[in-house]
Amino acid sequence: MKRYVELAEMLAAQIEAGMLPVGARLPSVRHLTSQHGVGQSTVFRAYHLLEARGLIEAHARSGYYVAAAARAKVRPAGRAAAAAAPQIEIDATDFAFSVLDTHRHPGIVPLGSASPSPTLFPLQRLAKSLAHATRLLDPWSTVHATARGEEHLRRQLAQRYLGMGIPQPLEEIVVTNGAMEALNLCLMAVTSPGDFIAIESPCFHGVLQAVERLGLRAIEIPVDPQTGLDLVALENALQRHPIRVCWFMTNFHHPTGHTMSRARKAAMVALLVKHQVPLIEDDVYGELHFNKARPFPAKAFDDHGLVMHCSSLSKTLCPGYRLGWTAAGRFADKVRKLKSMMSVATSVPIQAGIADYLQHGGFDRHLKKLRASLHAQLKAMEKAIARCLPSSVQYHRPAGGYFLWLRLPAHVDAMRVHTLALEHGISVTPGAVFASTGRYRNYLRINFGHPWTPRFENALEILGELLAAEEVGFGLYGYLLRRDGGERTYSMWPRFADELSAAPDYAS
Amino acid sequence: MKRYVELAEMLAAQIEAGMLPVGARLPSVRHLTSQHGVGQSTVFRAYHLLEARGLIEAHARSGYYVAAAARAKVRPAGRAAAAAAPQIEIDATDFAFSVLDTHRHPGIVPLGSASPSPTLFPLQRLAKSLAHATRLLDPWSTVHATARGEEHLRRQLAQRYLGMGIPQPLEEIVVTNGAMEALNLCLMAVTSPGDFIAIESPCFHGVLQAVERLGLRAIEIPVDPQTGLDLVALENALQRHPIRVCWFMTNFHHPTGHTMSRARKAAMVALLVKHQVPLIEDDVYGELHFNKARPFPAKAFDDHGLVMHCSSLSKTLCPGYRLGWTAAGRFADKVRKLKSMMSVATSVPIQAGIADYLQHGGFDRHLKKLRASLHAQLKAMEKAIARCLPSSVQYHRPAGGYFLWLRLPAHVDAMRVHTLALEHGISVTPGAVFASTGRYRNYLRINFGHPWTPRFENALEILGELLAAEEVGFGLYGYLLRRDGGERTYSMWPRFADELSAAPDYAS
Repeated sequence: MKRYVELAEMLAAQIEAGMLPVGARLPSVRHLTSQHGVGQSTVFRAYHLLEARGLIEAHARSGYYVAAAARAKVRPAGRAAAAAAPQIEIDATDFAFSVLDTHRHPGIVPLGSASPSPTLFPLQRLAKSLAHATRLLDPWSTVHATARGEEHLRRQLAQRYLGMGIPQPLEEIVVTNGAMEALNLCLMAVTSPGDFIAIESPCFHGVLQAVERLGLRAIEIPVDPQTGLDLVALENALQRHPIRVCWFMTNFHHPTGHTMSRARKAAMVALLVKHQVPLIEDDVYGELHFNKARPFPAKAFDDHGLVMHCSSLSKTLCPGYRLGWTAAGRFADKVRKLKSMMSVATSVPIQAGIADYLQHGGFDRHLKKLRASLHAQLKAMEKAIARCLPSSVQYHRPAGGYFLWLRLPAHVDAMRVHTLALEHGISVTPGAVFASTGRYRNYLRINFGHPWTPRFENALEILGELLAAEEVGFGLYGYLLRRDGGERTYSMWPRFADELSAAPDYAS
Repeated sequence: MKRYVELAEMLAAQIEAGMLPVGARLPSVRHLTSQHGVGQSTVFRAYHLLEARGLIEAHARSGYYVAAAARAKVRPAGRAAAAAAPQIEIDATDFAFSVLDTHRHPGIVPLGSASPSPTLFPLQRLAKSLAHATRLLDPWSTVHATARGEEHLRRQLAQRYLGMGIPQPLEEIVVTNGAMEALNLCLMAVTSPGDFIAIESPCFHGVLQAVERLGLRAIEIPVDPQTGLDLVALENALQRHPIRVCWFMTNFHHPTGHTMSRARKAAMVALLVKHQVPLIEDDVYGELHFNKARPFPAKAFDDHGLVMHCSSLSKTLCPGYRLGWTAAGRFADKVRKLKSMMSVATSVPIQAGIADYLQHGGFDRHLKKLRASLHAQLKAMEKAIARCLPSSVQYHRPAGGYFLWLRLPAHVDAMRVHTLALEHGISVTPGAVFASTGRYRNYLRINFGHPWTPRFENALEILGELLAAEEVGFGLYGYLLRRDGGERTYSMWPRFADELSAAPDYAS
């Protein structure tokens, strides 16, 4: 059992025994580190685990307290036997889950959240389309729902592809429960356990979870925030390993924000065609461009049906509706069958409602407004960063999306910043969740997808103070780091823009 | 390449070349069998494949014709290179997919469909709940959607469990995209490729697909329509093989209709507890009982958190909404994480709408009406069977659900009946899709979930004529069977009720 799990179990036992009653403040971090000879991060991970179990709760700027519901949760009544039975093992993604969930607490300033603010979406107009379409639904369409998806919706999606200059056959589109299902189905369509997959580093954490879940072997291809995916490294990897599939994000890459140029996208597709390796292209942020034109997906350069283009409306129109799709080229039939096996079909009313909205709701008008809001929020955040954060914090301005990927000085541990910030009621996402290899420990992902308010301004001020203190506290902290296995080197990104410069207009 | 695929490719090439223009009738089965030296079933499978590709379409009582859209589909414009690229291989479930899809054609009498008629569901009332709940949705709930599901909905579901006498902790419920996703996630939570799983024979075809997809090794436990799951065979299997999980349907078993008694459910759970083997319990038909009380799920007899109870509202309230769940006991946390990785969360408006309906819409009143309709439809179908089908056709009357599992004389091939019936505009489901082993070739599943009309009466008359002719045509057909690999023996079900008797009230 890992040390943080042990520590969490011990605290849970104290809660159960009544030694820590409901409402009691948990022992301080300092107390626990000295008493148990563990690092601070171990204590924080134990806290996160207990919080995820609902046993304790964070009070902003104060600390952790035993939650009201804790007593009932420790040993559910009448289930003593179950508690004695073997436990499900805690897997490696537990940590990522607990970190990523922290922004959900309503009192927390969600700089670490993965979504833009829902106030930016036309949810009332969408509700109207949903109500209208559901009322008019042909009852037989509910039992005849196909794995591929409703034709009305697929037509609307195909029309949008056509708007990008991509003639997209309807029968190659498969509608899914959000992009996440699309990405998973595409991956399942072309891999078996033990297969090699090329992924980005850093990458969207969902990639790492899928790779782990399916027992694949990942080859990491570096992504530089300024220069993007390392195509030479990709070519080397394709030559050296029997890579079965690549999974890349070509526009407003998560978390770095990089967008590949047209020329580099075309070159990448040509490389993949040469090796006959399919690409799963995650393009969920593609519509959120600040320059005039939407950047093309790599799909636009694919005449061989090798690119499985995956996207959704969760970042652009309706988070929580769980509506995504893939245009899966020559793999569409396999994907459709997997969809049928995994979840039969996507919700028919949701499909009908969104098809109605796409046709009549003014989606392009909404997108224009959304892009303008995100762009303005980026500018506001950049101003606050310039004012509040130490000058040692660097980043490359993205041309779209809503994430900034902050590089902290090499000795600053972003996980520690995450936990300290959380104690101040602010969530940020530590870089470690974007790689399986312990890299990016001095990176933070922050979100400018929320309307800029004094609350965010204030949060950046606090973050700035924390970062400045961490920077100075090198002596003590360096010691802790060495005890945890020595300092890491960050040789991967050879250079980093010293000055912020506007990203070039890749789409033009 | 299999012979039926070859034949389909040849016909597709003729369509492409214009030798078979749009609207042309396809060569007759007789012509193709004699010209190409293949069996009739090969021809029909080729037809189904072409139909699934949209190249041909069936005209009721007439035959197959080249579809209007066929010319464009054979070689999509500008994709000649893609067509030359290696094809995805056609997997073993192709056949089941094409057979199961036949009832979707609006001109076909859907005796073979897997759903009841959507006219039996309160879709307008539900649309009202959906519209109402979506309008009132807290915008933040859309971005904070959890993998576990909305608490309001889980409370409603927990209340229904309580109504069955099962105190169900909220945090062990995970809301899913229909029961199919719940079943798959539960299976993924407890197995790795190569693991042993105990399944039923015959069983729901989704089980076979999941087993194939996940690379599991299946041990089939016989289910007799009258006596149910063979517990002795299960005990032997548990002793002989390192079985990791069982996947059973305890109420109104699909396709046999059998419901296990309380005593046998309790005995089965005790057996599984003894061996510490979890059970995935598919209980999607449990609410469709004709006797007074809902039969208990096996979950009710489980004090060890070993039973993952899976269900949905697709058969009882809202097909096509894709709303299911699992009460996954000690595996709930693992299932929730897999849900998060596979599809993040279930659609929030759908969850909110259904929670609203369950609380205010009169679900129990609707269920009462639905059960009465299904029961009346069963009686009408039984009358028609007595009048129209040969007396050699036998079945055991189920105490709920909407399927009849017809046993034909041993020499009659239900697949052939399926294809002949389809030519007469009637779908029936051949038994072969309910086992991976070529069993149940003389069984048919038919559906009494549709309001009884002269159209169905007429369909049963035609089916009766077909079956009578097949019974007499033994000489020729026996020869064909031997050429395809010899006749099968059906030693699995030692006896079969000669007379129809009402099923006992298991739930009381």
